[in-house]
Amino acid sequence: MNFEDIKIPGKLVPDNYLQLSLAARRRRQKNFKELLEKRKLPEHGWKDEEIEALVHELSTLDSNNFSHNIGMGEREARIACNLVARRHYNFGHGIGRSGDLLEAQPKAAGSTLLANLTNALLLDLLQTLGMRSCRGCLLVPMATGMTLSLCLLALSKQRPNARLVLWSRIDQKSCFKAITVAGLHPIIIETLLLDKEQSLVTDVTKFRQEIDELGAENILCLYTTTSCFAPRNSDNVVELAKLAKQMALPHIVNNAYGLQCEPIIAQLEKALNTGRIDYIVQSSDKNLLVPVGGAIVATRDEAMLKHLGSSYAGRASSSQSLDVLMTLLSLGRSGYESLLLERSHNFEYLQHRLQEFTAQAGEIVPQCANNGISLALTLSSLCANPGDHRNALTELGSMLYTRGISGARVVPPGDVKCIDGYEFKNFGSHRDEQLKVPYLTVAATLGVTKAEIDRFFEVLHKCWDQLSKSNVN
Amino acid sequence: MNFEDIKIPGKLVPDNYLQLSLAARRRRQKNFKELLEKRKLPEHGWKDEEIEALVHELSTLDSNNFSHNIGMGEREARIACNLVARRHYNFGHGIGRSGDLLEAQPKAAGSTLLANLTNALLLDLLQTLGMRSCRGCLLVPMATGMTLSLCLLALSKQRPNARLVLWSRIDQKSCFKAITVAGLHPIIIETLLLDKEQSLVTDVTKFRQEIDELGAENILCLYTTTSCFAPRNSDNVVELAKLAKQMALPHIVNNAYGLQCEPIIAQLEKALNTGRIDYIVQSSDKNLLVPVGGAIVATRDEAMLKHLGSSYAGRASSSQSLDVLMTLLSLGRSGYESLLLERSHNFEYLQHRLQEFTAQAGEIVPQCANNGISLALTLSSLCANPGDHRNALTELGSMLYTRGISGARVVPPGDVKCIDGYEFKNFGSHRDEQLKVPYLTVAATLGVTKAEIDRFFEVLHKCWDQLSKSNVN
Amino acid sequence: MNFEDIKIPGKLVPDNYLQLSLAARRRRQKNFKELLEKRKLPEHGWKDEEIEALVHELSTLDSNNFSHNIGMGEREARIACNLVARRHYNFGHGIGRSGDLLEAQPKAAGSTLLANLTNALLLDLLQTLGMRSCRGCLLVPMATGMTLSLCLLALSKQRPNARLVLWSRIDQKSCFKAITVAGLHPIIIETLLLDKEQSLVTDVTKFRQEIDELGAENILCLYTTTSCFAPRNSDNVVELAKLAKQMALPHIVNNAYGLQCEPIIAQLEKALNTGRIDYIVQSSDKNLLVPVGGAIVATRDEAMLKHLGSSYAGRASSSQSLDVLMTLLSLGRSGYESLLLERSHNFEYLQHRLQEFTAQAGEIVPQCANNGISLALTLSSLCANPGDHRNALTELGSMLYTRGISGARVVPPGDVKCIDGYEFKNFGSHRDEQLKVPYLTVAATLGVTKAEIDRFFEVLHKCWDQLSKSNVN
Amino acid sequence: MNFEDIKIPGKLVPDNYLQLSLAARRRRQKNFKELLEKRKLPEHGWKDEEIEALVHELSTLDSNNFSHNIGMGEREARIACNLVARRHYNFGHGIGRSGDLLEAQPKAAGSTLLANLTNALLLDLLQTLGMRSCRGCLLVPMATGMTLSLCLLALSKQRPNARLVLWSRIDQKSCFKAITVAGLHPIIIETLLLDKEQSLVTDVTKFRQEIDELGAENILCLYTTTSCFAPRNSDNVVELAKLAKQMALPHIVNNAYGLQCEPIIAQLEKALNTGRIDYIVQSSDKNLLVPVGGAIVATRDEAMLKHLGSSYAGRASSSQSLDVLMTLLSLGRSGYESLLLERSHNFEYLQHRLQEFTAQAGEIVPQCANNGISLALTLSSLCANPGDHRNALTELGSMLYTRGISGARVVPPGDVKCIDGYEFKNFGSHRDEQLKVPYLTVAATLGVTKAEIDRFFEVLHKCWDQLSKSNVN
Repeated sequence: MNFEDIKIPGKLVPDNYLQLSLAARRRRQKNFKELLEKRKLPEHGWKDEEIEALVHELSTLDSNNFSHNIGMGEREARIACNLVARRHYNFGHGIGRSGDLLEAQPKAAGSTLLANLTNALLLDLLQTLGMRSCRGCLLVPMATGMTLSLCLLALSKQRPNARLVLWSRIDQKSCFKAITVAGLHPIIIETLLLDKEQSLVTDVTKFRQEIDELGAENILCLYTTTSCFAPRNSDNVVELAKLAKQMALPHIVNNAYGLQCEPIIAQLEKALNTGRIDYIVQSSDKNLLVPVGGAIVATRDEAMLKHLGSSYAGRASSSQSLDVLMTLLSLGRSGYESLLLERSHNFEYLQHRLQEFTAQAGEIVPQCANNGISLALTLSSLCANPGDHRNALTELGSMLYTRGISGARVVPPGDVKCIDGYEFKNFGSHRDEQLKVPYLTVAATLGVTKAEIDRFFEVLHKCWDQLSKSNVN
Repeated sequence: MNFEDIKIPGKLVPDNYLQLSLAARRRRQKNFKELLEKRKLPEHGWKDEEIEALVHELSTLDSNNFSHNIGMGEREARIACNLVARRHYNFGHGIGRSGDLLEAQPKAAGSTLLANLTNALLLDLLQTLGMRSCRGCLLVPMATGMTLSLCLLALSKQRPNARLVLWSRIDQKSCFKAITVAGLHPIIIETLLLDKEQSLVTDVTKFRQEIDELGAENILCLYTTTSCFAPRNSDNVVELAKLAKQMALPHIVNNAYGLQCEPIIAQLEKALNTGRIDYIVQSSDKNLLVPVGGAIVATRDEAMLKHLGSSYAGRASSSQSLDVLMTLLSLGRSGYESLLLERSHNFEYLQHRLQEFTAQAGEIVPQCANNGISLALTLSSLCANPGDHRNALTELGSMLYTRGISGARVVPPGDVKCIDGYEFKNFGSHRDEQLKVPYLTVAATLGVTKAEIDRFFEVLHKCWDQLSKSNVN
Repeated sequence: MNFEDIKIPGKLVPDNYLQLSLAARRRRQKNFKELLEKRKLPEHGWKDEEIEALVHELSTLDSNNFSHNIGMGEREARIACNLVARRHYNFGHGIGRSGDLLEAQPKAAGSTLLANLTNALLLDLLQTLGMRSCRGCLLVPMATGMTLSLCLLALSKQRPNARLVLWSRIDQKSCFKAITVAGLHPIIIETLLLDKEQSLVTDVTKFRQEIDELGAENILCLYTTTSCFAPRNSDNVVELAKLAKQMALPHIVNNAYGLQCEPIIAQLEKALNTGRIDYIVQSSDKNLLVPVGGAIVATRDEAMLKHLGSSYAGRASSSQSLDVLMTLLSLGRSGYESLLLERSHNFEYLQHRLQEFTAQAGEIVPQCANNGISLALTLSSLCANPGDHRNALTELGSMLYTRGISGARVVPPGDVKCIDGYEFKNFGSHRDEQLKVPYLTVAATLGVTKAEIDRFFEVLHKCWDQLSKSNVN
Repeated sequence: MNFEDIKIPGKLVPDNYLQLSLAARRRRQKNFKELLEKRKLPEHGWKDEEIEALVHELSTLDSNNFSHNIGMGEREARIACNLVARRHYNFGHGIGRSGDLLEAQPKAAGSTLLANLTNALLLDLLQTLGMRSCRGCLLVPMATGMTLSLCLLALSKQRPNARLVLWSRIDQKSCFKAITVAGLHPIIIETLLLDKEQSLVTDVTKFRQEIDELGAENILCLYTTTSCFAPRNSDNVVELAKLAKQMALPHIVNNAYGLQCEPIIAQLEKALNTGRIDYIVQSSDKNLLVPVGGAIVATRDEAMLKHLGSSYAGRASSSQSLDVLMTLLSLGRSGYESLLLERSHNFEYLQHRLQEFTAQAGEIVPQCANNGISLALTLSSLCANPGDHRNALTELGSMLYTRGISGARVVPPGDVKCIDGYEFKNFGSHRDEQLKVPYLTVAATLGVTKAEIDRFFEVLHKCWDQLSKSNVN
């Protein structure tokens, strides 16, 4: 609605009052204009009503919202349930067209704009965070795992005969399944244990060996992971990127929740500049605090992004673009930076509290120089009674959970897991060879508060004491 | 909230008034109970506030909504933007777990319940509609095309060496891309032209020939399509299902918008009973009038559904489950049946009006005995000036669109389209050999109104007259 | 937001797609423009999203929503609770200023516009409905009763020494309290019983007598009522208006739910033209189907409306204006007319069904030529046992209510009620002298459905049979 | 919805996951139970979704939301517009019954509960804030001015022949109009100027004189005001309450925005204990940060509250109760106390900054020992050019306003205002005799931020410099 074009009668409101209001509105219009023309994340977060105004306006650009639209096709974005229409701001057409996520839809100029704007703001955010070499971003409305699969399938189109994927082991199921879903064959490369630090790192040498042995022409790509549970470290993406470049092999990075961690970003930027990464994939929910369901693919080569977009079959949900756009506008650059800063402080606080705890409890915190998110705590004391320790571990996990602690994981040794025909010994510890002791992992991720950490230790102390006593008896 | 458990003081409300209200509330509780215990689509639609009450209550079962939750993991379903939380009713955890769409999440009992309930109601709906042999339904939060890809990839896990897909040609891009995205090789089987009816049917004989020639062991599956643009008919799913059974070959059906069409349902049910279909895939948006973004996979074998669910990598968006659940509850069985009935009447009306139009205009409506949704109208008059007819056709399309008619497609002869390296002559007409004349397709799909059809003909007449005049001149 | 002013980059959306959308948006802008410039009720209802767009835009005109506003006063329309802000679309300043409901607020151009626009649309509606002589409408955000009080107090300012109000008795409490709340003295004029019709009419003669006896200078005004429970008829507003004019006495009409009834409107228009009415007051909830809380005052003299507006002390809630504006835009003229037509049909249907019922049950339906909304049904059969009939009556009322019938009133004879010191014999029957038999009243008001009427008779039959049996025993 | 009563099948969600969720839900139920049973403000604010859950549940208790309701009356709370129903959470029946705000409605147990609960929480809040002698609270859905009128009219019913109101002058229009609207006669008692402090106080002696002269039997009540613009102080409510008690005269207090100010609360509590106050009236919007439209009446005598409630004619809007309830639950006791504390700090900060400013500018800040909200700043420098000073003053006001400063008032000397026939000399300065210089008032009210105050001084400095320069020239 454009008031400036309307001669509002003085009977409705005196002109001098109105003029002041119109002047104030022009500031809002300026924000809209700037956002659309410059496609940059605003410095400061917008108010809810401004965000909704933008989103509502965009949806008026879609044909299903034209007052004179006559739908004679097979898909006209009619929405039967009023509540559903409302929660989607009357967006119904999804994004992409005829199997290309980046193609514009003639029927849905608003949805097209929504998707492209979201991708542009994401690119701006990534560049701001330090991934300055990125040239393109695409929000894919699928889980991170499926999006990694899509990246593999896209690479596969270019190298149809190369069906092996060299993967630095990380014991997270969907990360691995991304390979098998795509019908490809994983070559699993175990992590190396640093004895002193009791933490795990990438076995770069083994990667090189495997390429030599298997033949580069049979290898689709290298596949590494940054953010992960301690005591595993982020993969050595810099070295592997160099290796990829040297061998002319594609390289994809699972940067699941790494956007929130400055050192990881720095490594990725360095890797982009000195080596080769084709796709960096990150979860939208973990990095942007939106509901589960999307992944952000970043590239330094726009052509590769287009190739990926065109590898999707069908139109896709615009719901994820909407969530991400609204969240980015709501936070603004400064809001996101505050979240990052707070997380970084809370990570240090968590580490400090854990070290305090271990000093008392006779445990250790493995040193992971390249893991700024997750921390581990050994649980050797709970293994005093050899026969019984599995129970004690299970009980600790269960006690924490019923007391409201979610996300703390007890990793017992000896679990064997079979995923799509591949067997993983000691699943959860990222290598076949057993770690000396079981441990517990906790993380300081975006949005965690100091109060939560305090409350966690309160509960941990209680559970620990209780278990220690019963262990003694 | 359970009022029955609270001793509400008479100072707040007199007990006799309250008791009447509590009695009324028990009816509502009975509905909730029945829905959850029986998992059947309610006969009559629920009111918006009842639907929202259910959805809100379900979301209280997810750990991110527990008042005492302490999130120490890497994914705790925190939602940064209030508007986003609100539009998702505070659901944040998505559905599925560790790469299995059908697995329950310990952190998210509510999301789990939401997803499973939606699948159960969909199954009930399909059975009611006539697909009585279905034993399982899964709403996949991806486009129909990608879901077809996922089905192909799932089959591929079971038959890793069979990489050919026998596909009855339909000129809809994402339908074809489902094959190439999965890294498989399509064998394109052209449709046959029925000369008298001027419509297209499945070349069953050619399917059989190809199997013989290529070897069943190399063929991953048969891949057919029901709902499509006239003058193509629905594929002969019954005969192909028999062939699949006979040859012990998997068979997937793209039933994109076929749920809304009784004869298609009847064919599918017959095919399920007399032959073999592994997965039937349909779009949620076209059949249920929700925003784009989901597909419903139906099977007669629960094990095949579980296999599919476990072929997804990562957790998935619960947004589509929410849309479908709310829509189903809003319509109820009777509401959906009314929509079907109205569509069926409107299809007949559209056919009748088209025949009237062609009688005047000297055109014909090809007879598609097996297409109850889409209708074609030849455009031979617009090709009077041979050199110029392409312009006239393009202009008709554009005139209709700018006048608010969306979804009416002009199919000119002679287009060649290349998709992922495969060339399609006369793209849009489902076969290489050219149809005699160009045509226009229109459809009567769920939600179209008689008023829209009337308005369409009003516009068509005007455009036709205008083009005829300028053609003469 | 004004897209036309923004150079949207082709990277966000191709210009040709965008242009079509902008053209569609111009239709919406045209609607906004027309509404604000002409201030007439739109012919057709607006879509929810159009209504909300307008309302949101209006609220941006209020200073509390300016992004740069610094509030240094005692009332800055800050809203603490996000949910409250949301449900009021960020309107916080209320309407009116410094004790004048019609004065514009410099801080709140949007709220001012909202209130004035609502009043303008109400005036247009009333004129359309047939009250063509109305020149002004004011939505007062208080109950009908309090608004009647406000009218009396406004008249009282002009005639401070006249403290008697001549009131045609109607047994509805708040209607009478409107007089006593204002500190004025009611002169109660009983209704006359028409013997044949068994219905009640205004005692015009008595009015004239009272004026003569009490002296016109002591009388503040005549006070009549249109819509009422049968067997009372609408007051003879035409004759009383003539009397008022002749005696130069003010006259106010309580037209509580009379807007929905064409004959009442016709009488009022006639009265306005041939006699004198100062204020006509009607409930917004009953006539416009909004939540309780407002009243519409109509006058034929704008000066009288201004006088009334300035008789309010303080600023008032804008919530009622919002409800009425949204409802009027949602219905449009045609929507409201459909509601009226449906009501009128349902009234006839209710009458017909009642007559059928009485024919069987040996009761009668009193004939109220001037009551087109409420109908009565005698309950003589329930009084067979003289000692017991009060119980039977109470039980009927209670049986109906517990079975979900709300609004059906059983009027037993003999109730005495004292309101603010005035005693009413046979309260509920509009006169001291007892009607022969008790009765039940039901009404066909705006929004009632045929299905509800059917269900009412189903329940009534069951209750009647049950009571008849137990009466016999 | 009560999950405990439903046997949720394991197919929907595993029972062990569900049980943990149900345990978490019990905490929520406990909160609901406590709120309704104890009727006390919760210590900590509730989450939005908890508030909405409560409100939705309450509305299911109203008959218009019963699924089996058949409305046969004249008011059945039907709501035509979906958006309106939604924003009122389907509450339609309003509060009160037949002209008594405190009476329960049989048709609307939920609305009744809503209103009574809100009143109970308000009472708890007032007692917590220090008005421990209060025994009853009533939220009246009318402006503060109209509510004061209602109080006067209620008193008037008890003393019908006493028509004079002794009013300590405060130049706020609606405060005065409260008297004239009620048809009563104000006796205006000017404030006294304290020479040294340059502030204004109540002329208690004059009150006593007027009672003697006019005769207590002719005086309806004393009428005082607490919160007001500097340099007026809060009235001396303690002495006037004593006088009222001594003379057996009613006394009402306009405590418009005084709830936010601890010293005012303390004075009122003292006055309640040592003297007589019948009704204390405060604005809901200014004290609770809800939209304009309600007033809270507090009494130490429940009977007086009931008398007031029964003095309202008709049913009233429940919208205000909803706003207040939601706001109170959202803030909780601790949230409101934080707001109070912040305001108190900001008042001191504003005072400090003003004193700094005056030291530079050669002006003074009048000392108002009994005004903890509003502050004045003399503007003598702007009157250097005698002929021109009015312009300079007007310009300052206008410059501030166009720069986004709302609520800062410039009070020029010499204004004469006539309200309902009463003339006020030097309107705005609370007394006929002119103050020596014009001044500007600003306030630190609930919700103001330090950043706003800083920005105000930034703007003030700029305007001041600009005006000073042009004054010189």
